[in-house]
Amino acid sequence: MSRRITVQKFGGSSVANTDRINNVAERIISYLKKGEEIVVVVSAMGDTTDELIELAKKINPHPLEREIDMLISTGEQISSALLAMALHKRGYEAISFTGLQVGIITDGSHTRAKIIKINTRRIREELKKGKIVIVAGFQGVNRKKDITTLGRGGSDLTAIALAYALDAKICEIYTDVNGIYTADPRIVPEAKKLKSITYDEILEMASLGAQVMQARSIEVAKKFNVPIHVRSSFSNEEGTMIVSKTKRLEEAVITGVTLSKNEAKITIRDVPDRPGIAAKIFGKISDEGINVDMIVQNVSKIGTTDLSFTIANSDLSKAIKLAREVSKDINAGEVSADEDIARVSVVGVGMRTYPGIAAGVFKALAEKKINIEMISTSDISISCIVKKNLGEEAVRIIHKKFKLHKINS
Amino acid sequence: MSRRITVQKFGGSSVANTDRINNVAERIISYLKKGEEIVVVVSAMGDTTDELIELAKKINPHPLEREIDMLISTGEQISSALLAMALHKRGYEAISFTGLQVGIITDGSHTRAKIIKINTRRIREELKKGKIVIVAGFQGVNRKKDITTLGRGGSDLTAIALAYALDAKICEIYTDVNGIYTADPRIVPEAKKLKSITYDEILEMASLGAQVMQARSIEVAKKFNVPIHVRSSFSNEEGTMIVSKTKRLEEAVITGVTLSKNEAKITIRDVPDRPGIAAKIFGKISDEGINVDMIVQNVSKIGTTDLSFTIANSDLSKAIKLAREVSKDINAGEVSADEDIARVSVVGVGMRTYPGIAAGVFKALAEKKINIEMISTSDISISCIVKKNLGEEAVRIIHKKFKLHKINS
Repeated sequence: MSRRITVQKFGGSSVANTDRINNVAERIISYLKKGEEIVVVVSAMGDTTDELIELAKKINPHPLEREIDMLISTGEQISSALLAMALHKRGYEAISFTGLQVGIITDGSHTRAKIIKINTRRIREELKKGKIVIVAGFQGVNRKKDITTLGRGGSDLTAIALAYALDAKICEIYTDVNGIYTADPRIVPEAKKLKSITYDEILEMASLGAQVMQARSIEVAKKFNVPIHVRSSFSNEEGTMIVSKTKRLEEAVITGVTLSKNEAKITIRDVPDRPGIAAKIFGKISDEGINVDMIVQNVSKIGTTDLSFTIANSDLSKAIKLAREVSKDINAGEVSADEDIARVSVVGVGMRTYPGIAAGVFKALAEKKINIEMISTSDISISCIVKKNLGEEAVRIIHKKFKLHKINS
Repeated sequence: MSRRITVQKFGGSSVANTDRINNVAERIISYLKKGEEIVVVVSAMGDTTDELIELAKKINPHPLEREIDMLISTGEQISSALLAMALHKRGYEAISFTGLQVGIITDGSHTRAKIIKINTRRIREELKKGKIVIVAGFQGVNRKKDITTLGRGGSDLTAIALAYALDAKICEIYTDVNGIYTADPRIVPEAKKLKSITYDEILEMASLGAQVMQARSIEVAKKFNVPIHVRSSFSNEEGTMIVSKTKRLEEAVITGVTLSKNEAKITIRDVPDRPGIAAKIFGKISDEGINVDMIVQNVSKIGTTDLSFTIANSDLSKAIKLAREVSKDINAGEVSADEDIARVSVVGVGMRTYPGIAAGVFKALAEKKINIEMISTSDISISCIVKKNLGEEAVRIIHKKFKLHKINS
C-alpha cells in the first residue's frame, strides 16, 4: 500500500483566475485513480505576489522581511481555499491548509527560508478520510510560528519536500509547457519532447537558460531522489520525467540545446600574468553579489593576458565599474564590454562517456561560418559564446547535427 | 504598572488604502505615551472581505464555511502586515500577527465562531520588547488549528476580547464617526455628541438601528466590563465612552433618539383568541430564522383579535407567505403587509426611575398630528411605529421635546 500518494503542483498561471481554478479542479478529478491519494500544492493566483509586494513598497520601500512573508503568504492561502471550493462544487471532498497548519517547519530566514522538516500527521489523517489535501505552496513557519516564505520557485520546493516526506510515488509539476524539449520549439520547430531527463541534465539546462524549474528545487529532488513529472496543466499529454537515471539502454549523447541571450561579456586587457590576480578580480566582483559565469584567459603579450568573463546583463554597469577599479589597482589595461553575445549550450549525461562531442559542435558551427568567441565545458555540457544574432541559428545547426529530432528519450 | 495597555481597533474604512494605512500609523504614533503599550487590531482593507466572498461564489455558490474562513481571513492578515510596515517606515518597532499566531482560540463554528480563550504570552513578550503589536481582527483558530472567523463586527470582538485578556485600561474603537450622538446629525443638525453612554443604552440603540457597533461585541464588553472609547480615525476629537455606569450625578432621562426605516409590518386579521395561537404563529416564523421585533394585538370582534408584528424588510416576502399558511391553518382572516413604516425609539437608562416619559413622547407626537401605529417599550426604551415619511420629523420633535441638544452627558 505504500507509494500510492501523488503530489501535484499547479503554478500561478494555472490558477490565475476562477476559470483556470475550475480547470485545475477538473484536471485533478480526471487523474484520480482508485486507491490513490492526492496532495495538491498551489501557487498564488497569477501576479498576486508581485501585486502585494508593490502595495507594500508604496507604504515602505524597505519593508521588514518578516512582514513581507506575512503579507505575500496570503496569496497561496487564497488560491488553496478557492481550489478546495471548486472541488467541493464537483462533489469531491477536499481540505486546504496553510504551510503553518500543515507543519512545514523552516529556518528563520524570511523570504528565502529553508525547509527543516514537515509534520505529515494532519495530511495523512485527511488523506485517510478520503480527502484531497490542498497545501498553500511557497510558505512555512519558523519555530516561533512566524510565517516564512521559501523564495522564487518556492511552491515547487513545497511540492518536492512534501513528496519526499509523504514517500509519494511521484511529484507532478503542472506548468504552462508540455514538458522539456531538446530545444526551444520556437527556435527549432522540429524539437522533440523528452520522455525523461536526469536531474543533472536539467540542472545544467536550468542554469543555462531553460526556465522550467528553479535549480534549487531540482537539487532537493536530486538529493532525496524524488521523481518529478513536468507536464502541462492545459493538456492531457504526458510530459517529461526528471529522474536520477534514464531508462535508456544507450544514453542519448546530447539531450538538449539551450540558448541564453541575457549575458554580457567583459574583457580586461593586458592583465599582469602573476599568481593571485584572478582571485583579486573575481573576489571583488563576487563580493558585490555578482555571479560570474564563463571565464576565458588568452595570452596577448608576453607576461600579460587578456581576461574575458560573462555575467548577467542586469549586472553589467556595476561589473564594468568594478572591473575598471580592479584594472587600475593591478596595472592592467583597457576594460571593454560586449552585450552583443548569446550563449549556446549542449547538455547530455552521455557526453561523460562519449568523446568528441566538443569537436563535433565546433565543426558544425565552423561549417556555417559561425565564430565562437568563448568556450566552457563541464562533464555533461559544452557552452559557446557567439554573436547574438547568430544564437538561434547556432541552436538549429547543433540540433540538426546531432539529430535531436530523432532522439528516443 | 498594571492597566497600561491600550487596545486600538481600526475598521475597514480606516485602512481602505495605503494612504489611510499611513494615516492610521501616524495616528497610533501620535497617541503613544511614555510607558504605555499599544495593541492594534485591524480589519480588512475596505471591501476586501466582500470581494473575496464574491470570488468564492463565482467558483462555488455554496462554499464550505471552513474554506470561506481560510479565504477571508487573509484580508486582515494583509492589512496587519501593511500597518506594521507603515510603522517601521516611521521608525517604530511593530510586529503583526494572525489570530492563530496570537493564540485566539475559538470554538469550531466557522464564519461565526465564539472566542474561548486567548493566550497572551506572545503579545506580552513583544510588548515587553517595546513593540507595537498588531493583530489581525475577525479571526481565530479552533483546537485543530483550522482558521475560524467571528462573523460581522468580528474585529470589534477581537479588540474587546484582547482588552479583557490583557487587562487593558481601554479599548478604543476607531471608526468613521466622531462618537455616539443623541440622534443622527443628518436628521437632527443640533444633535449632541454624548461624552458617555452605558452598555445597556448602546445595546438598545444598536438593536434599534444606530449602527455604531454590533450588539454582540457590546454584550461581551458589558459582560467583562471592558471600557470602550468610540472615536473617529479621521479627527483628534474625543469620542464617546461606553461604560457600565455613567458618571453623571443625575442620569439624563433620555440619551438618544433613533430611527429605523428597515422594517415592515404584517397584520393577520380575525385571529381566534385562544391559548397557544401566538406560539403557533411566531414559532413557525422563528423556525424559518426570521426575527420578529414588535408584536401588537388588538381586539377586533368578540372572540378574535387582529395581530400585527414587525420584521426586517428583507424578510417580508418570506414572512407573508408563512403568515398566510398559518392564517389558513388556524382559521384566521386576511393577511396584509405595510412597508410604509418607520420606527422611532427613545433610549435612556434614566427612564427606569423617571415615570411619564412614554406619555411625554406620545403627547409630543400627537401635538404635531403624527399618528402612532404601534408601540413597544422596555425598561430603558420606548419605540413607536409611524408612517415612513414622518419618521425624521418624529425624531426631531422628540429630540426637541426632551431638550437633547442641551444634554450634559
